[in-house]
Amino acid sequence: MPTYQAPIRDFQFILSELLNIYQQQDLSGFDEFDPELVDAILQGVADFTTDIMLPLNTIGDTQGCKIVDNKVITPEGFKQAYAQYVDNGWATLTCDPQYGGQGLPEVIGTFATEMKAATNMAFAMYPGLTHGAYSAIHAHGSDALKQKYLEKLVSGEWTGTMNLTESHAGTDLALLRTKAQPLDNDTFAISGEKIFISSGDHDLADNIVHLVLARLPDAPAGVKGISLFAVPKFLVNNDGSLGEANTLQATSLEHKMGIHGNSTCVMLFDNAVGELIGEPHQGLRAMFTMMNQARLGVGIQGLAVSEIAYQNALEYAKERIQGRALSGAKEPDKAADSIWVHGDIRRMLLSQKSFNEGTRALMAQQALWLDQAERESDPTKAKQAKALAALFTPIVKGFVTDQGFKACVDAQQVLGGHGYINEWGMEQYVRDIRISMIYEGTNGVQALDLVGRKLLGDKGETLTAWSDMVKGFIAQHHNNSQMTPYINGLMEAAGDLERATQFIAKNAATNPDIIGAASFAYMQLFGISALAWMWARMAATSLAALEQPSEEADFYQTKLKTAQFYMSYWVTQTRSLRKQIEASSEHIISFDSNDF
Amino acid sequence: MPTYQAPIRDFQFILSELLNIYQQQDLSGFDEFDPELVDAILQGVADFTTDIMLPLNTIGDTQGCKIVDNKVITPEGFKQAYAQYVDNGWATLTCDPQYGGQGLPEVIGTFATEMKAATNMAFAMYPGLTHGAYSAIHAHGSDALKQKYLEKLVSGEWTGTMNLTESHAGTDLALLRTKAQPLDNDTFAISGEKIFISSGDHDLADNIVHLVLARLPDAPAGVKGISLFAVPKFLVNNDGSLGEANTLQATSLEHKMGIHGNSTCVMLFDNAVGELIGEPHQGLRAMFTMMNQARLGVGIQGLAVSEIAYQNALEYAKERIQGRALSGAKEPDKAADSIWVHGDIRRMLLSQKSFNEGTRALMAQQALWLDQAERESDPTKAKQAKALAALFTPIVKGFVTDQGFKACVDAQQVLGGHGYINEWGMEQYVRDIRISMIYEGTNGVQALDLVGRKLLGDKGETLTAWSDMVKGFIAQHHNNSQMTPYINGLMEAAGDLERATQFIAKNAATNPDIIGAASFAYMQLFGISALAWMWARMAATSLAALEQPSEEADFYQTKLKTAQFYMSYWVTQTRSLRKQIEASSEHIISFDSNDF
Repeated sequence: MPTYQAPIRDFQFILSELLNIYQQQDLSGFDEFDPELVDAILQGVADFTTDIMLPLNTIGDTQGCKIVDNKVITPEGFKQAYAQYVDNGWATLTCDPQYGGQGLPEVIGTFATEMKAATNMAFAMYPGLTHGAYSAIHAHGSDALKQKYLEKLVSGEWTGTMNLTESHAGTDLALLRTKAQPLDNDTFAISGEKIFISSGDHDLADNIVHLVLARLPDAPAGVKGISLFAVPKFLVNNDGSLGEANTLQATSLEHKMGIHGNSTCVMLFDNAVGELIGEPHQGLRAMFTMMNQARLGVGIQGLAVSEIAYQNALEYAKERIQGRALSGAKEPDKAADSIWVHGDIRRMLLSQKSFNEGTRALMAQQALWLDQAERESDPTKAKQAKALAALFTPIVKGFVTDQGFKACVDAQQVLGGHGYINEWGMEQYVRDIRISMIYEGTNGVQALDLVGRKLLGDKGETLTAWSDMVKGFIAQHHNNSQMTPYINGLMEAAGDLERATQFIAKNAATNPDIIGAASFAYMQLFGISALAWMWARMAATSLAALEQPSEEADFYQTKLKTAQFYMSYWVTQTRSLRKQIEASSEHIISFDSNDF
Repeated sequence: MPTYQAPIRDFQFILSELLNIYQQQDLSGFDEFDPELVDAILQGVADFTTDIMLPLNTIGDTQGCKIVDNKVITPEGFKQAYAQYVDNGWATLTCDPQYGGQGLPEVIGTFATEMKAATNMAFAMYPGLTHGAYSAIHAHGSDALKQKYLEKLVSGEWTGTMNLTESHAGTDLALLRTKAQPLDNDTFAISGEKIFISSGDHDLADNIVHLVLARLPDAPAGVKGISLFAVPKFLVNNDGSLGEANTLQATSLEHKMGIHGNSTCVMLFDNAVGELIGEPHQGLRAMFTMMNQARLGVGIQGLAVSEIAYQNALEYAKERIQGRALSGAKEPDKAADSIWVHGDIRRMLLSQKSFNEGTRALMAQQALWLDQAERESDPTKAKQAKALAALFTPIVKGFVTDQGFKACVDAQQVLGGHGYINEWGMEQYVRDIRISMIYEGTNGVQALDLVGRKLLGDKGETLTAWSDMVKGFIAQHHNNSQMTPYINGLMEAAGDLERATQFIAKNAATNPDIIGAASFAYMQLFGISALAWMWARMAATSLAALEQPSEEADFYQTKLKTAQFYMSYWVTQTRSLRKQIEASSEHIISFDSNDF
């Protein structure tokens, strides 16, 4: 059974030392949180996730969800754990205090999300989707809607879902067919079938608020004719009490590769009563405002599952004995050395470790940009932060889940045959995390978003702004010889990224298909460069800390070693990715249908 | 439900045009097979695998195996299909005619293996393991043992297993504890528990011949004290009839990520009666002689499942409509273009296609080396072929299953959310093929075998021999301007491989741990170079074919385009892999236990 140690020290390092969040005076509400309070919150989440959620992870996978008498039943223990989750107030952390939330900045909340996804991804998706529904109504709903739904969603007493996909329309929402027919009283009759609906029905909460994309009768064709509706499982009376059941149903559960503990439903809406969220035909806009946050959430899953998989692979590698080190026995008193001595085992573990720690810092940076976009008093700075968060969204979703999946596959590999059987839990991580590369926009769509929309959309303006930050950092540390390995790695990655960017910018106008052909390699190249930036910054922070005598010198020294490994292992990929973009894009386009 | 088209034309291209197997006069027995006969055999296997094995693949996954009344029951339909498999004589193809086999060369048999593994990997493992047991007894057994077992194993009436792993001893067989106690009549009492035993018990055959590694009482410690025994499920009387049940049992079935249709058992031997195969304490030697073939078999699984996953991803990509091509609508009469137009979908499909076709050619080359080692009349040539097959064994097993797994993950990705649910069959391919990276020696062990044993073991002699073949090919085609893209790609890959080899050779003596640290990247670099060699050869073959007017010009043109894609996409990785070896090996070694 896998174990978990919440990486609290790493959280503290990022918050206090790397990002200095306690010195962000111009961010509204940040002054309400000091290190002691934040530590207490994070430790609370660490305890809850480790003690309550982790033991349910295998149970959730083994039992899955069931439909009994037309009702979806979650695995044993989920209902009790969820009740405790609500009682403890964990659902409220980053929500608006006006509706009972605690107003915690995203940069702190992101770590709570990580611990939840690490210990039980399928369980964490119930509150995760609820938070999405909360955000959409909070940003776009009328006062009446907010009054009706937000407090219950914030507390977690009710949960939420997102109903986008139909069997013939996933990525391309322009094709969707679900209809909304206006009724007399400002409500609408929603009819249609939605598939792949996470947390679509369950027994954890008294009510479920479905957010549904549908077309009004006068809707223009395509994506400009899609509206967003709130469609509750049980209608809500004016006094807030629950009324009769709405005409909607989970008609079946999808049988999936993983996340069995989450109920992924086919939902049938049969003239179900719903209310419009925001303006008619503006449903996609409402979705898009939530997207940066939702995609950060999925990216955090990639990191989180990679982290717990790493921790358990490391533990196994230290305990399992098999063979001898090539340079001679390291544990001669044992019948064999622990496999931790073997170079290839170390390579896999270090690849995971350096990815996880670099990514954790990047996720926090991204969350801080989202906080700045919301809370920064200077509108120019807020706008800049928002643009940076938008630019990095495909990285934190696409790059991180691709690499997080690979890290889980490596962690499974460390256990050999034991990694392939259910008992050790490692194969579940691979199956669970696989979905993160697909949902909330496939990673191919993320890559296209990065190149087509984020890079070429603003003519590279935001990329240049980030690039200037990187160049500024390099200029600042260039003369510090201790920083040389990190600065060199960062320069190598940034140089390849710059050249790849120029190649795409130059060719995209005359040959737009090249955007799609080059996008995936570009996203990987960008992601590796982004982590190189985080690692160089963490190295600088660690070197600064080591200037004082510290009881934690080992912690900072290991950060430096890990940064060096990152630069020598991960960054060597950037040149190939650039060459792949330059060399293969034409060939990708040139294939005809009958060539395949 | 996935479909399958056996790639018969590609088989023919490889056999007749690329490898010229019908002109191999100096290989004993090759003259018995002409193109018509071989086509008939391959078409027969194609029909059987597509009609009978493929429909059972989902059933096998869903139902799995069960233990009922101490007996292992295979999924519905497996028993009937296996009976038909035996009746049709498919088990006999590459076996020795002396025992009822058909003496088919491995270079042809490899394609039968591919079709079986593509359509139903779990089912194919029953005859696959049987063939392993046949080979061990054929190579090392006494005449009496051969008489007793081989005919039944060749026909498939009885099946076989390999019992190596114990719960504490997998990769490191030196640690194994199963005991063999001599009895009066030249037999031995075998006692111990073995885990992860594929096809360990089932209801497909009347008897199962377990090959078991165990220690004799006088055995030296470590791997030099391991002997190999044949331990039948039912004792065999002198007249060949079945006697009483042996004292062995499948005590439980492992719950695995995939290959549910194969019964992976925990086997308990309780003074079970066995006979020695080969000499006492020489069990590992007997295992090692089978290893090249067994590892080729696992590599073929990597190719095979990648092929069927590719075929079904391609079909989906041509039918599923979603969005528009970036250069404008390609199918304006439809509501959207088929996703096949999108650059990133093409990138994934072409990566799979170029990997599959290149690998199929490499597998056949490897099988031909194995044939030459057995059948070549000139002992120098036979020895050379054997050495080349040994060198390439970690490539065809380790590199191919690593990349085959990635190809399946990409194929799953093409289907988006539909790839994640059971219904479409794609997620099963990912789960099934994952084991191929682990069993028959983990891919980390393959990489270590490549660098530590195959490369440094003979001081690079065999690598140099292969390298000379590559250089000879380059010299031969260097002046042909049509060959330029392929020769350039091959030279780039081979150049990086040469420099990486020099780096390892130079540093391994003083720093042996570097072998392990560098091995994985080296195996990938070698694999990409090996496929570049196959693709350059296939390009030359295709160009030669195009010199004559041909109705199949499209076939050869597509081969050339695919070869170009391979060179521009896959080969761009070699430089990074070389840099990774040079730059990161030291860092991998330098980490202390408490740095992780």
